[in-house]
Amino acid sequence: MLPIKRFPGSAPGRSSIVAHAGLVYTVVTADTYELDMTRQTREALANLDRQLAEAGTDKSRLLQTTIYLADMARKPEMNAVWLEWVDHDNPPQRACVGAELEEGDLIEIIAIAASKE
Amino acid sequence: MLPIKRFPGSAPGRSSIVAHAGLVYTVVTADTYELDMTRQTREALANLDRQLAEAGTDKSRLLQTTIYLADMARKPEMNAVWLEWVDHDNPPQRACVGAELEEGDLIEIIAIAASKE
Amino acid sequence: MLPIKRFPGSAPGRSSIVAHAGLVYTVVTADTYELDMTRQTREALANLDRQLAEAGTDKSRLLQTTIYLADMARKPEMNAVWLEWVDHDNPPQRACVGAELEEGDLIEIIAIAASKE
Repeated sequence: MLPIKRFPGSAPGRSSIVAHAGLVYTVVTADTYELDMTRQTREALANLDRQLAEAGTDKSRLLQTTIYLADMARKPEMNAVWLEWVDHDNPPQRACVGAELEEGDLIEIIAIAASKE
Repeated sequence: MLPIKRFPGSAPGRSSIVAHAGLVYTVVTADTYELDMTRQTREALANLDRQLAEAGTDKSRLLQTTIYLADMARKPEMNAVWLEWVDHDNPPQRACVGAELEEGDLIEIIAIAASKE
Repeated sequence: MLPIKRFPGSAPGRSSIVAHAGLVYTVVTADTYELDMTRQTREALANLDRQLAEAGTDKSRLLQTTIYLADMARKPEMNAVWLEWVDHDNPPQRACVGAELEEGDLIEIIAIAASKE
């Protein structure tokens, strides 16, 4: 049986990162509840960088990202930050849809990355 | 070519579970259309247990879960049931967002688990 | 380190298809902005066929699909096209939920397929 490595989450009953068979599964939001899409996106992507690093990988190994936005009208603000952040030589597959998020969250990103194994 | 194992779905044109290369993909809802989040979550998670068992694995091998709720205001009810159910030594990565579901459904859970290979 | 193959996307900062370790990750929408669910679904699925082919695989190797619809009331129209299109001997796991999409899009499909390795 291939081992599963789990990293503690910010809340009980879930892991922030799960690594298995060369893949890393994670989800991030921002730290702030300020309703500023630019800032929340920067924080969410900084958290993604941190979590990928914790799992021994980085954004150049991202495979799939699904971005949920609380307000699709503000997608251009998110996208501007994304374009500054993404590894343009190694961009992931990305989908972005509007969904109701937790009170205070403007953005939530689910990601699958390859490990460096 | 690695083989793919597919389990019949509740509707034509889809599989309830697909297993490939050590990963198991599945989706569950509740059985009832009663608008009771606690009950629907219990049923959905019981269905998840059943489907993981059918694929030869169990909740301790869950990697990633995405929970769609028809009403985010009722997330605390879902979460209480989740915390009773989840394997606290082996929790998956979990995201939870609000989305419009099929009439009568309050919850839908997409999951990726590791097989016991 | 297992190699990652990326195919250019329709917009900067993302790949249309990413292939890694026997799995193919992709996302599709329709080409038209005509608000016709039948036509948009046909186009999205034709795009999915094309992208899977580009990655050296096909719909018989689909594992997981998540369909986002801008209007769940029109799910029956999507489903009729799906049933014509899907490989009934090899259907993927499928989830379908309502979400806010980009202006003009009625459907967006995220998919994970197995390669033919």
